Amino acid sequence: MPAPTNRFLKACRGEPTDTTPVWFMRQAGRYLPEYRALRAKMDMLSMVRTPEIAAEVTLQPVRRLGVDAAIVFADILLPLLPMGAPFRFAQGEGPVFDDPIRGLADIERLRVDLGDELDYVGRTLELVAKELPQDVALIGFAGAPFTLAAYLIEGGHSRNFARVKELMWGDEAAWRLLMEKLAEVCLTYLRMQLRHGAQVVQLFDSWVGCLSPEDYARYVLPYSAAILGGLRRDGALSIHFGTDTATLLPLMAKASASVLGVDWRLPLDSARGILPAGLPLQGNLDPLLLLAPPEVALEGVRRTLRAARGGPHIFNTGHGLVPETPPDLVKRVVDLVHEEGRS
Amino acid sequence: MPAPTNRFLKACRGEPTDTTPVWFMRQAGRYLPEYRALRAKMDMLSMVRTPEIAAEVTLQPVRRLGVDAAIVFADILLPLLPMGAPFRFAQGEGPVFDDPIRGLADIERLRVDLGDELDYVGRTLELVAKELPQDVALIGFAGAPFTLAAYLIEGGHSRNFARVKELMWGDEAAWRLLMEKLAEVCLTYLRMQLRHGAQVVQLFDSWVGCLSPEDYARYVLPYSAAILGGLRRDGALSIHFGTDTATLLPLMAKASASVLGVDWRLPLDSARGILPAGLPLQGNLDPLLLLAPPEVALEGVRRTLRAARGGPHIFNTGHGLVPETPPDLVKRVVDLVHEEGRS
Repeated sequence: MPAPTNRFLKACRGEPTDTTPVWFMRQAGRYLPEYRALRAKMDMLSMVRTPEIAAEVTLQPVRRLGVDAAIVFADILLPLLPMGAPFRFAQGEGPVFDDPIRGLADIERLRVDLGDELDYVGRTLELVAKELPQDVALIGFAGAPFTLAAYLIEGGHSRNFARVKELMWGDEAAWRLLMEKLAEVCLTYLRMQLRHGAQVVQLFDSWVGCLSPEDYARYVLPYSAAILGGLRRDGALSIHFGTDTATLLPLMAKASASVLGVDWRLPLDSARGILPAGLPLQGNLDPLLLLAPPEVALEGVRRTLRAARGGPHIFNTGHGLVPETPPDLVKRVVDLVHEEGRS
Repeated sequence: MPAPTNRFLKACRGEPTDTTPVWFMRQAGRYLPEYRALRAKMDMLSMVRTPEIAAEVTLQPVRRLGVDAAIVFADILLPLLPMGAPFRFAQGEGPVFDDPIRGLADIERLRVDLGDELDYVGRTLELVAKELPQDVALIGFAGAPFTLAAYLIEGGHSRNFARVKELMWGDEAAWRLLMEKLAEVCLTYLRMQLRHGAQVVQLFDSWVGCLSPEDYARYVLPYSAAILGGLRRDGALSIHFGTDTATLLPLMAKASASVLGVDWRLPLDSARGILPAGLPLQGNLDPLLLLAPPEVALEGVRRTLRAARGGPHIFNTGHGLVPETPPDLVKRVVDLVHEEGRS
């Protein structure tokens, strides 16, 4: 396992760094031709379940881009498989659950024992850790309870999250049982990843921004806090991220992750103004800016770096890279962040 | 035309009211059985284009709910029709443009003269104005330039607004021409509605929340400000609304609408903290709370009213009512707002 000496891990701890560390959400994925070459031969879940392939995909952006962290090639929904909630990826639709959760009886049936079903993720992490240079960190991840619950209940992507909110407000006992089970499974799964080579774990609450702060505090925060607080007590480093969270961030900070991710809607200087002093922030370039002319995109990078001054910062996009992203421009962003971050 | 004496208009002006005025976005629509009875006989655009039907639909929620304002039954996209950008409503998909805008040549072809093509909206407003009690206000509306541009360029709903952002960043001259044309058409269209009986107009920038504050300020605000500033100079009352706007609201306030709409992500007391003192606010119950058990929904209404103290307030949902909303609960919300708003 690489020693925790690289600038990404230092920034996660809030320590000074030689320059700003950088990685990207979805840096391993469809925008890279070397990924598409592998993907042409097998489906996404098969790639994830084949440690040699998943490790190769994890390493591809490290080789090409010179980022300061690798993130294991996996999916936020994986822990739902051993729970007994199978899903598939429908063409152009994203994940689909053919049997979405309807109420308490379905929730009671969900298992909380991972068994050995996700051991392939641990194996992938081990393979990557062996290959990774000392100065590149290894990140594990999972979906957060609210986002997993949203997929389970909506059965896939949703525009307004009506069903998950109906269950949350309409059957609080069922909701709390579901969130407890999801939190337990997430914590177990993230700890497993940390044992197998992950040095930091990111908890993705991708859809939590559909909630009001009141609802977030009451129905979600206790469960994210159980996971992130558990990791903190373990001495592990963690990142907590969601989109549309401008009004939730002060509450999310209470869940006690080491680093808080911010999307592009909230400039990082404004974020520092509403968050505890010294809290490391990750973000927050609009990922679609990488589809803009390079000079526009790079000016956005400089603006992000300027706004980030005033505290520890890990450069990232404010959401995942999209498949149309030009890899060469991503490489230029990495170089620019490293160059400008020194000043 | 009813005299401007009702509590809704007073609140728009920031004047004291006897109780909190209330109306709902999409209060005329599919959740009402009397609407569905009409809708069963003709498609939505035909209803909109038949003033007698559109007037009846506009009045339905006034009769049933006792709201303080009616909003003309129309669609935010209507001004795109005379511009030469036809669309249709696809089953379950919302509006679809079969020929989305690709670049400058398409934008140059767009017309800015409404002609008499939207006269049916004026006729509907006249019919409603004749029927409406003195104490109920009449609202007209249009989509704001960014949201109209998003539909035109994406060709329909979008998850990440990649195409509209690409054009905005990639061809600033084309973007500015498009936004100028849309602003001109919107202002003309809203003024027409005001001449025909609308007492207030709402400018819906439904999708603007996908932008960072920097991009909003640079690429959008000037055009919304041209419309809302023009209306202000006319002495007309206006409401400006979008979703996901927590970080944009201080900039949106500069567009100088009479009232600013807020979605449920930002509690109204927090909104007052970042906005000019005394600015009337509209909102902001999560519309999906109306699918929750009544006691949960009504507690949300009370919480919203408490957070709204400290300045002029028009009660509304933070986005449109959904088709599954129980009409009886909406009526109870109106009564509760009127009752609690007196204290």
